[in-house]
Amino acid sequence: MTYAVFLDRLAASCSPNLCSSGIIRAVSHPEPRPSRPLPSLEELRAPVEADWQAVNRLIHQRLGSDVALVNQVAHHIIRSGGKRLRPLTVLLAARACGYEGESHIAAAAVVEFIHTATLLHDDVVDASGLRRGQETANAVFGNQASVLVGDFLYSRSFQMMVEIDEMAILQVLADATNTIAEGEVLQLMNCNEPDTTETDYLEVIYRKTAKLFEAGTRIGAILGAAPGLEDSLVNYGRHLGLAFQLVDDALDYDATAEELGKNIGDDLAEGKPTLPLIYAMKHGSAAERHMIREAIRTGGTQNLHSIQLAIDTTGGLRYTAQRANEEANLARESLRRMVNSPYKQTLLQLADFATARRS
Amino acid sequence: MTYAVFLDRLAASCSPNLCSSGIIRAVSHPEPRPSRPLPSLEELRAPVEADWQAVNRLIHQRLGSDVALVNQVAHHIIRSGGKRLRPLTVLLAARACGYEGESHIAAAAVVEFIHTATLLHDDVVDASGLRRGQETANAVFGNQASVLVGDFLYSRSFQMMVEIDEMAILQVLADATNTIAEGEVLQLMNCNEPDTTETDYLEVIYRKTAKLFEAGTRIGAILGAAPGLEDSLVNYGRHLGLAFQLVDDALDYDATAEELGKNIGDDLAEGKPTLPLIYAMKHGSAAERHMIREAIRTGGTQNLHSIQLAIDTTGGLRYTAQRANEEANLARESLRRMVNSPYKQTLLQLADFATARRS
Repeated sequence: MTYAVFLDRLAASCSPNLCSSGIIRAVSHPEPRPSRPLPSLEELRAPVEADWQAVNRLIHQRLGSDVALVNQVAHHIIRSGGKRLRPLTVLLAARACGYEGESHIAAAAVVEFIHTATLLHDDVVDASGLRRGQETANAVFGNQASVLVGDFLYSRSFQMMVEIDEMAILQVLADATNTIAEGEVLQLMNCNEPDTTETDYLEVIYRKTAKLFEAGTRIGAILGAAPGLEDSLVNYGRHLGLAFQLVDDALDYDATAEELGKNIGDDLAEGKPTLPLIYAMKHGSAAERHMIREAIRTGGTQNLHSIQLAIDTTGGLRYTAQRANEEANLARESLRRMVNSPYKQTLLQLADFATARRS
Repeated sequence: MTYAVFLDRLAASCSPNLCSSGIIRAVSHPEPRPSRPLPSLEELRAPVEADWQAVNRLIHQRLGSDVALVNQVAHHIIRSGGKRLRPLTVLLAARACGYEGESHIAAAAVVEFIHTATLLHDDVVDASGLRRGQETANAVFGNQASVLVGDFLYSRSFQMMVEIDEMAILQVLADATNTIAEGEVLQLMNCNEPDTTETDYLEVIYRKTAKLFEAGTRIGAILGAAPGLEDSLVNYGRHLGLAFQLVDDALDYDATAEELGKNIGDDLAEGKPTLPLIYAMKHGSAAERHMIREAIRTGGTQNLHSIQLAIDTTGGLRYTAQRANEEANLARESLRRMVNSPYKQTLLQLADFATARRS
């Protein structure tokens, strides 16, 4: 199901006052974030600490190759770290479903490998120089190595899935990787295209980001043999992923997010029509609209500061953050039927974390 | 098992007079090619004509995506054609093992998709402009689309494998794609490296080319539920693939191969130390050695004609062709224990075709 179809079905199923005319919002007034302090990543990992360590050990073990350059590139990008929220959601989802086996460790590592392979290919496509504040693999090793080591990671993850020996999981991941690839192509098609709509944008971020979160949490339900929770966890993963990407796209223009590990304005340099720009074009003056259209068309960053100002004055960042909060609320809402546990509580906190993060 | 390990085991198992000191040759005096006329591709396809048509239909069906650019790029490269020897070997191997089901059609298409994805990423890595006499996808659509549509094809093939619903086949293809990715990285590491040895070269072509042939014919045995033939077909696929690549690398310097669908000297422009060059460096004069080393180091083609001459006078093309014939003989030899059938006969003819082809 594409995200557009999903939106249509959601629109068809929710009462009119829950759906705005343009974008569908199942929760029209986002609940305020709980007043408890924002959890740290360490706190989020605590309920599955042993699993978490096992995933990291497995990631390092399975990066091995007798080809030296594979090791160098793969370790470079894995060492660069990142928050590893995707494998964390797999672990939490499986445990929340009562899973007591060991396959969630491999499944979590697989999801991280797929994500890492995507990053390697993404950075080639974007010609990025920095990611998470460090030089990208393609900047250090060249595009060629990044493409091929990305392929190595895809195929290694495929080997690990086969070892899990569960056809339903293979099915989920095959479909997810295909959707992600389509999403990346869709994003490429939208690049330098100022007429990209909010719906187009949502379709891209669903495919390129939310789908893998969705796959990861679905695998948790499959491993936990909890078919009754599969839909809940799929919805949770989807909305969490959307929230996560919306925040990511807002941070790219957020001048106060100095701690952000990538260059401000990277998306603009790539001509990516993300939501802050789409909103600012819709609600800005003719001059602002023209300036942003030209920047998207040419990937020019010479007006970055004026564009940041336009996004700010039109409320583009606020709107994007609000949409992220709505998705986070939907993610939390999705788990309503799940019995309580420290794992469920952490999944709920993850939704807070996804929207409140500053990097 | 790496090809180096395979060579070691072969060396350990064959009598001294069958093994030269440098390169292992299990057949020291290649049998002359049978005197019958070389079969055409159409003749090779004839015993599995209905299957062949079904594979081509499936390839076109499964290329579909609701993302326009995916369709354009994928159809561009699939339309460019090629001989599709890999899917043909899958069909023939399955039928030769008595398989009467339908899954070999999907398996054959999967193998072609994996090959095509590899080509898309290869052309990005090589910055190639022409393949099979046509503009490459990256020349037409850009590197970005080629990387991402390559990912689409990998993941689509993965979906199709899951549909075949046979874990043993998934295992074979997971391992094959991982070996191929390593082979591509290994090839990248050897680029511009004039000290690459014949053993290094053989390791690369085993991984990047022979492994997929080997996987395809192994799948034939798995589908045909013929475990007794699995080793035979694996060996057949490996040797056929090696023969095929050796010929490919010879044709890249063969001035008489005007019909070849790619630019003569492409490998040299990429600084690829293939066997004709390795041999010519070993057996040429100091001046020839120096000229070739510099060309490999710099990827310079300004001395292409002199290098072709050096390859010719040292016997580099003849030697490469001889090695290809040896591999083709080993491929034929591998099928000794297989009962006769039109499919087996065609597999034998394919080995002739692989070495005698001029394009």
